[in-house]
Amino acid sequence: MKINSKYAQGMAALALLVSMNACKPKDAGSVVSGDAASKVYVAPGKYDEYYNFVSGGFSGQLSVYGLPSGRLLRVIPVFSVDPEKGWGYSEETKPMLNTSHGNVPWDDLHHVSMSQTNGEIDGRWVFANGNNTPRVARIDLGTFRTAEILELPNSGGNHSSPFITENSEYIVAGTRFSIPPDDKNGDVPINTYKENFKGTISFVSVDKDNGNMDVAFQLQGPGVNFDLSHAGKGKSNGWFFFSTYNTEQANTLLEVNASKRDKDFIMAVNWKLAEKLIKEGKGRKQKTKYASNRFDESTHTATSTIKTEVTVLDMKDHPGLVYMIPCPKSPHGCDVDPTGEYIVGSGKLAALIPVFSFDKIQKAIADKAFDGEYDGIPVIKYEAALYGEVKKPGLGPLHTEFDDKGNAYTSMFVSSEVVKWNVKDLKVLDRVPTYYSVGHLMIPGGDSKKPTGKYLVAYNKITKDRYLPTGPELSQSAQLYDISGDKMQLLLDFPTIGEPHYAQGVAASVIKDRSVKFFKIEENKHPYVAKGEKESKVFREGNKVHVNLTMMRSHLTPDNIEGIKVGDEVYFHTTNLEQDWDVPHGFAIKGALNSELLVMPGETTTLKWVPLKAGMYPMYCTDFCSALHQEMSGYVRVSPAGSNVPISFSTGTNMPKSDAAVPGTKK
Amino acid sequence: MKINSKYAQGMAALALLVSMNACKPKDAGSVVSGDAASKVYVAPGKYDEYYNFVSGGFSGQLSVYGLPSGRLLRVIPVFSVDPEKGWGYSEETKPMLNTSHGNVPWDDLHHVSMSQTNGEIDGRWVFANGNNTPRVARIDLGTFRTAEILELPNSGGNHSSPFITENSEYIVAGTRFSIPPDDKNGDVPINTYKENFKGTISFVSVDKDNGNMDVAFQLQGPGVNFDLSHAGKGKSNGWFFFSTYNTEQANTLLEVNASKRDKDFIMAVNWKLAEKLIKEGKGRKQKTKYASNRFDESTHTATSTIKTEVTVLDMKDHPGLVYMIPCPKSPHGCDVDPTGEYIVGSGKLAALIPVFSFDKIQKAIADKAFDGEYDGIPVIKYEAALYGEVKKPGLGPLHTEFDDKGNAYTSMFVSSEVVKWNVKDLKVLDRVPTYYSVGHLMIPGGDSKKPTGKYLVAYNKITKDRYLPTGPELSQSAQLYDISGDKMQLLLDFPTIGEPHYAQGVAASVIKDRSVKFFKIEENKHPYVAKGEKESKVFREGNKVHVNLTMMRSHLTPDNIEGIKVGDEVYFHTTNLEQDWDVPHGFAIKGALNSELLVMPGETTTLKWVPLKAGMYPMYCTDFCSALHQEMSGYVRVSPAGSNVPISFSTGTNMPKSDAAVPGTKK
Repeated sequence: MKINSKYAQGMAALALLVSMNACKPKDAGSVVSGDAASKVYVAPGKYDEYYNFVSGGFSGQLSVYGLPSGRLLRVIPVFSVDPEKGWGYSEETKPMLNTSHGNVPWDDLHHVSMSQTNGEIDGRWVFANGNNTPRVARIDLGTFRTAEILELPNSGGNHSSPFITENSEYIVAGTRFSIPPDDKNGDVPINTYKENFKGTISFVSVDKDNGNMDVAFQLQGPGVNFDLSHAGKGKSNGWFFFSTYNTEQANTLLEVNASKRDKDFIMAVNWKLAEKLIKEGKGRKQKTKYASNRFDESTHTATSTIKTEVTVLDMKDHPGLVYMIPCPKSPHGCDVDPTGEYIVGSGKLAALIPVFSFDKIQKAIADKAFDGEYDGIPVIKYEAALYGEVKKPGLGPLHTEFDDKGNAYTSMFVSSEVVKWNVKDLKVLDRVPTYYSVGHLMIPGGDSKKPTGKYLVAYNKITKDRYLPTGPELSQSAQLYDISGDKMQLLLDFPTIGEPHYAQGVAASVIKDRSVKFFKIEENKHPYVAKGEKESKVFREGNKVHVNLTMMRSHLTPDNIEGIKVGDEVYFHTTNLEQDWDVPHGFAIKGALNSELLVMPGETTTLKWVPLKAGMYPMYCTDFCSALHQEMSGYVRVSPAGSNVPISFSTGTNMPKSDAAVPGTKK
Repeated sequence: MKINSKYAQGMAALALLVSMNACKPKDAGSVVSGDAASKVYVAPGKYDEYYNFVSGGFSGQLSVYGLPSGRLLRVIPVFSVDPEKGWGYSEETKPMLNTSHGNVPWDDLHHVSMSQTNGEIDGRWVFANGNNTPRVARIDLGTFRTAEILELPNSGGNHSSPFITENSEYIVAGTRFSIPPDDKNGDVPINTYKENFKGTISFVSVDKDNGNMDVAFQLQGPGVNFDLSHAGKGKSNGWFFFSTYNTEQANTLLEVNASKRDKDFIMAVNWKLAEKLIKEGKGRKQKTKYASNRFDESTHTATSTIKTEVTVLDMKDHPGLVYMIPCPKSPHGCDVDPTGEYIVGSGKLAALIPVFSFDKIQKAIADKAFDGEYDGIPVIKYEAALYGEVKKPGLGPLHTEFDDKGNAYTSMFVSSEVVKWNVKDLKVLDRVPTYYSVGHLMIPGGDSKKPTGKYLVAYNKITKDRYLPTGPELSQSAQLYDISGDKMQLLLDFPTIGEPHYAQGVAASVIKDRSVKFFKIEENKHPYVAKGEKESKVFREGNKVHVNLTMMRSHLTPDNIEGIKVGDEVYFHTTNLEQDWDVPHGFAIKGALNSELLVMPGETTTLKWVPLKAGMYPMYCTDFCSALHQEMSGYVRVSPAGSNVPISFSTGTNMPKSDAAVPGTKK
């Protein structure tokens, strides 16, 4: 293995710095002032001030926390199956995880974007990216459920996603790993990367009424790695900015080979021009396959559709569409300030933070202040685009959020700290340590045109000695800071589900009154709904047996079922007849090679069960629902294949035919 | 449907009581005194005082919380798959979820028992029950991982489980739903319950050195529902007590038909006699099938063994083995005080709490103070066993825990409160409201011979307005109380994962220094381990391709793999070469119909992948590990079936053969 020796030295220095983190004083109590306890305490029955939507990273899910308490309010299953909720197991939700590869039970959710209207968070949806098998998801903030998942063609890792425009016209998705496009032969030697691999950016349209997503168009360009991105806003609305790395186009040992260049690029995309080109028919139709999965709330059922075509613009063919801006040392974060004028690039191996000016970029374009081309794309001169550099901010800047007072907060991975600086004069104002190796930051609204200025959360990558140990795997960690004063104050450590990457937050008032409390049973259009116990039934269609079953405190209807045979496919279509908040029922049957169902009031959900042995199978309600929950159960009798036992079903009437006495207590 | 009208009235009254809970003042702030914030605040970097192991209910998992902060330290996957950790997806963990029915991806974990030595929690293991497809699990408190899962034959719902004896000789498992025994024909009419269904109690032995579990013997008796249980301790060590319901032996609409009798039973089992009978060969061998799944830490791999026989004692055939004690109104909790003298029965529809005396029970047995038999089992006279009744404690007593001062704390489901009473004089000392519908309670050590007296946690079944809303499904809720004074003080509400049932807790000092930090690579006996990058390789065996891959900050070895063909079964055996705490790596590949792997330092874990299409597949590390984590990636080339591309693999050497230039920035 051949390693650039200068680079190796740099890495050794970085490694030393990283290891130095572990030498920080273990006792952070001293940096916490006396009022921290009361600042984070939310008394029983009181509400948190903010919702915090936190990516679950390799869990594939989205976590909802309350701030300032740091309490986990809900884990919303998105890209990964969740046997607790039947997500990916019920017949209704299986289509949500369909892809062109088949049913994928897991993904890696890195970033979230809340929907915006006029650059402000509107509380309608949260979008999230799936990084491994490239997808984007839309979560409905009325139901707190995933409403849609869209696969992305021509992509190999969807990382710079799902960042959003200021009126939610588009979310974007930039491929992290370039690959040969789907309509080319991908069976090529890996070391033909430079010839055969392409980098693709997807613009996913969002229907302004119902949120439905489609791949509006894709931009195809050089094979590089796209890392992060953000939309312009205000004056820069109409543009999108993406960070890139591996502009060396290495295909192996990227740790060394993708870190050779002093500068990679921020890529600026004029998406309004792209829209215009598409309207003018300048797009190229490309054959591919990708899944579009949507959940219909009236039938409580998802449908997966495989789409076969996408419209592509080749970056280098359309002058004015795409520009490259040099950015030092493997850019990672790419953030835009609330005014839209300042674009912050964060070279993760850098010791300074370059801040670019939108006005200067426009002038550079007009002046053709270019420094050559990269694969046919004009490269704007660094100085022509640069507003200025934040000097000595720390080591390894990653991500920047903004407050309501013109300040920026940048996470420093290598030196493990948050650095506050003024956007106008680029002076460092304050710095606080994080424990350890901070990744993303979040200020509620800190990515919008209207940031708040009370709390900042740092999402950390290493936990070490922050909590009681739990074996080789430790919880990930978030840290809450008070940023209302001149100096940042550490308030609280709280653990997170999975690995937190980007998160967003919003005042509770924007969302809490939108919450759907239950589904109206009279609006339930599920084909196998039973809208009352009298509609419950069991019927056979060949080897398929449908059980239209109702659940109501505290019995199943029917609760005695006979006539099922080995080899049957049994579908329990369970309807929760309750019409009140917080009264879910659950459903499970012994030995099923399946999860449970968790059924909300008014909803119908289906469990498929293929019994493999004759015998007696208990079924029951899994979600404690009343003082007589333990009694909410029943039996299914399974007879051998070819048996003559007829279908029968009942609740409360299948009494013993023989008058077998209950054992008495007298002898 | 025919419903007992008197009963229906009673239920209506209960329903009214339940609905009244919703009228409680929403603002609980007034009941929280000023110092609560400081009492629950654990400053960043400080440790919690207690570990709290909380059942995840229908999540199937075990949650680890810190107290008093209520912070979620870890979710340990037990009975349900966890795509985040690869649990149930990696080749090594798939056998853990095997059963006689096949691979079951979910269960319903209700209760936990921590291992004990001399009646005190010793910090070695936590046991847990699977309620749906009857199983018990053992979780190792060095690794915080599930080390063993044992299926239970002759069972239909394993609810009164896994309660433990004072030296961890046995954990028990009582069937919640009686069924025809496994060696009988289970294909019988459901309404032949009284003739054909049996209730089975399993005694599972625990090896005192390595914790390995086996079904030592089972007791078979009348078809009833076993609910909860606890071992005797001290003077009553050698006995086990189980609550029963549905002694009516109803087979349908249990809500009505299993609540007809004024009293069901607490069943007292002399397990030392059972042991003696088994030793004397009095057990009956019964054919059955059940899975015994054990994880081997040296190979990092689980093995599932199907066992085919179990030893059974029929309850009524062995005088002195089992007695019934009448207990009012559908007994639920069955708890034994720290001295072992008092057995508390909690009739969930009752308005009093009967407390039985072990000494009186023994005397009643000696005196034959019986009130007839139940299916051949002597029924001890209620008064002969009764120590006394706690009068007017509230409505719907469920579960009781004990403190270090001779007090008992009982949860009241219907009246939503915790009631403190003195064990000796049975006087009610204090009561505090819970929000809402409390189930189990937990005091660290509160189930052992050495309870503590500082905190009590109530695990609630309904959340309603306790937190910011999250759509139709709300988080479950726990509430922390200070019980160190005469009056209980509500300190904190915190949400829980899944539905909490029973929980246990112990002082942090008992566990925290046992934590395994990483696995020693030199002790790794996995057959496909690569103990260094030089040992990494890719080799073909027919259509199986093995990739012995290493992970080390920040590259995969190999990271370029060619020669894979459509239809191959590819096994990525990934070894994490790190030897430091908190440096896991993850592994994923695009389009795999599988989860990720999360690989701890020194461990080898295997992902199976069957590529379905030719093309280029990125793979990468999913767990942020360094500043160059984003670079820790590679490509696998998949060629069509029948292709001649040979197997090749490398990291850092597969450079372009053509001298294709990287796009320059000059033109």
